[in-house]
Amino acid sequence: MTDFQKTRALFHMPDGVIYLDGNSLGPLPLSATERVRALMVDQWGEMLIRGWNQGGWMATPRRIGDRVGRLIGAPEGTVVMGDTLSIKVYQALASALQLAEERDPARRVILSDSGNFPSDLYMAEGLIKSLDRGYVLKLVDPLAVEEAIDETVAVTMLTEVDYRTGRLHDMKALTKKAHAAGAFTIWDLAHSAGAIPVDLLGADADFAVGCTYKYLNGGPGAPAFIYVAPRHADQARPALSGWLGHEKPFAFDLSYRPGEGIDRMRVGTPPILALAALDAALDAWDDVDMADVREKSIALCDLFIAEVEARCPSLTLASPRDGRSRGSQVSFLHDEGYAIMQALIARGVIGDFRAPNAIRFGFTPLYIDERDVVSAVDILAEIMDQRLWDRPEFKQRGVVT
Amino acid sequence: MTDFQKTRALFHMPDGVIYLDGNSLGPLPLSATERVRALMVDQWGEMLIRGWNQGGWMATPRRIGDRVGRLIGAPEGTVVMGDTLSIKVYQALASALQLAEERDPARRVILSDSGNFPSDLYMAEGLIKSLDRGYVLKLVDPLAVEEAIDETVAVTMLTEVDYRTGRLHDMKALTKKAHAAGAFTIWDLAHSAGAIPVDLLGADADFAVGCTYKYLNGGPGAPAFIYVAPRHADQARPALSGWLGHEKPFAFDLSYRPGEGIDRMRVGTPPILALAALDAALDAWDDVDMADVREKSIALCDLFIAEVEARCPSLTLASPRDGRSRGSQVSFLHDEGYAIMQALIARGVIGDFRAPNAIRFGFTPLYIDERDVVSAVDILAEIMDQRLWDRPEFKQRGVVT
Repeated sequence: MTDFQKTRALFHMPDGVIYLDGNSLGPLPLSATERVRALMVDQWGEMLIRGWNQGGWMATPRRIGDRVGRLIGAPEGTVVMGDTLSIKVYQALASALQLAEERDPARRVILSDSGNFPSDLYMAEGLIKSLDRGYVLKLVDPLAVEEAIDETVAVTMLTEVDYRTGRLHDMKALTKKAHAAGAFTIWDLAHSAGAIPVDLLGADADFAVGCTYKYLNGGPGAPAFIYVAPRHADQARPALSGWLGHEKPFAFDLSYRPGEGIDRMRVGTPPILALAALDAALDAWDDVDMADVREKSIALCDLFIAEVEARCPSLTLASPRDGRSRGSQVSFLHDEGYAIMQALIARGVIGDFRAPNAIRFGFTPLYIDERDVVSAVDILAEIMDQRLWDRPEFKQRGVVT
Repeated sequence: MTDFQKTRALFHMPDGVIYLDGNSLGPLPLSATERVRALMVDQWGEMLIRGWNQGGWMATPRRIGDRVGRLIGAPEGTVVMGDTLSIKVYQALASALQLAEERDPARRVILSDSGNFPSDLYMAEGLIKSLDRGYVLKLVDPLAVEEAIDETVAVTMLTEVDYRTGRLHDMKALTKKAHAAGAFTIWDLAHSAGAIPVDLLGADADFAVGCTYKYLNGGPGAPAFIYVAPRHADQARPALSGWLGHEKPFAFDLSYRPGEGIDRMRVGTPPILALAALDAALDAWDDVDMADVREKSIALCDLFIAEVEARCPSLTLASPRDGRSRGSQVSFLHDEGYAIMQALIARGVIGDFRAPNAIRFGFTPLYIDERDVVSAVDILAEIMDQRLWDRPEFKQRGVVT
């Protein structure tokens, strides 16, 4: 049984804050500051260039990849860290299209849905324009994805948990349908890794990508990860073919030869400081059972929904009511959503706003419990009852994340 | 006049080390540790998601881009930080090819040289394979580049300073010739930024990219930069079209619309911890005149060459003898180069080895002076005179960086 009292004590939480935005940026793990300091002073400072060997820096992207892999059902040696999620989406899509072309050159559809995170769609757009050979990005409603998988589809590119609503795709069923239709699958786990149990191998996913600054608490701009199914790892050609993905990076050959397996998905020099922070953050997961996380996450979300619906009737639930169909987040709609979220933040309840009208709350069992949920709804109800959101300062738009 | 006593005091140098490898990884700036700690504790810890606005994180890639820009002759608003150098090479090349195709769809040659850093060539290879429309990467000898620029060339992709020999390309002359031939230019400044004066605007360069962990001392895996000439900035289409390059990232539109100018070269979420370390590192340049750096760098390199040639006759100079034709590094060749470098490192003189037979030394005036050069040659001469490199432990190959 996971000890959530213990995990809660591993994170810094500012006084007066109820943090329901760990789905955007996880809080600071208390051990991360010292870990990064030690990396900087003892390794960068003392070892200098020798840190790449003596400090194990060169091996870090694979070592931490394996740590992330354990949370998403990926076998050892199938996940590597690096770059940003957008870059990893591009890399996965370019590789998947190459495999799809080799199997059936006629297919030209990349299937995604209108609930996918826009950056994934933008990266696909950029790749399609560059390739300039008739690929189309077909966007359907999230509920229409299954029906849209047919023999025209080269690759499905889906985010498992809808960033706005928390609606969960059935990864296993959709992957099975895609494979039956002869398509490859890419799963974006941005809102899955550390949020819900994921079983990439069991679902037979072809490619997966994700970020580590949300539920994995790696810090702002923490590196992304990519998974390639073992059956593809030596066939996939990395369009982003950088030296650290080369079979022998330090031979300095003039021609590229892809490294073995997942190594070829490495590109440039890895971000060692950021990886040190992430490494510390992942310690929090060492004694955690994802089944316990899932159970508590559903309970927290259910409690939040019940309380908000009972006390804030003007807010409309935008997330699935059934916890099994939902990630670890809940959204409500309101025309004044932006101002409501600003009023909440002013009172210390931090969630976020997603245009045009959603207020979104993440529930992260590692450091959030029932008391937080009840306190948050107390404040939300007061804001709604007394229209405390109806002030000019809460309606002024800035950069929102 | 630059005060190099003062800059030297800004860096940590381990006892007993003479560090001639700042061209691979710059040393730890003393202020960087506290800067990163403060970012983590005061901003990530206390502001949480609000750091993106309150902490100015979202603006950091542009703000630091301007700081780097001042060292490379780039006007404000033309440089942005992010990703790795390999990714930025890909992005610049994809954009340059798009502009070249719009001007003259028939051209299919990407011209580079055999002295370019392999990762740049690998990234070009990957892009060419993906595009699959007849592009070829033409590699010529570094000395034959000027002659090879003709009307078949779409883009020249060159690293200003040869990573092995330090040989310097004439950026202004080659850019002029490329433009006269109707080609676009990409300059990799990996061994230029912070090493030699660079005048991107004066040279009329089209695109430039570089890393910040060498002469700019940003730390292992510090973020890269990209420059786009103002005349192209609103025309270039970023193949890597991520949400932070979107005109309105937080509108969450389903379609990509490139942001204004250099903003469109942003891709994913920026690495905030790494940028904090780099920001601290760049403080060292505040009162530095690049002309002083250049003068001292040439003097240090000249001294090193003279001393080594006088005292180690079995080593063959691989770098240009004329300081004006050289970056801030010197290489010598020897069949036992690998073992010689290991013997040097064992004695505290840190340079690096580049296959097949080069030992390479970087001279970084901010923290290296004449005494270091003389001491390093004393040790090198002793190693050569007494064949101290001729031991099994120095010949065993590991991962070399």
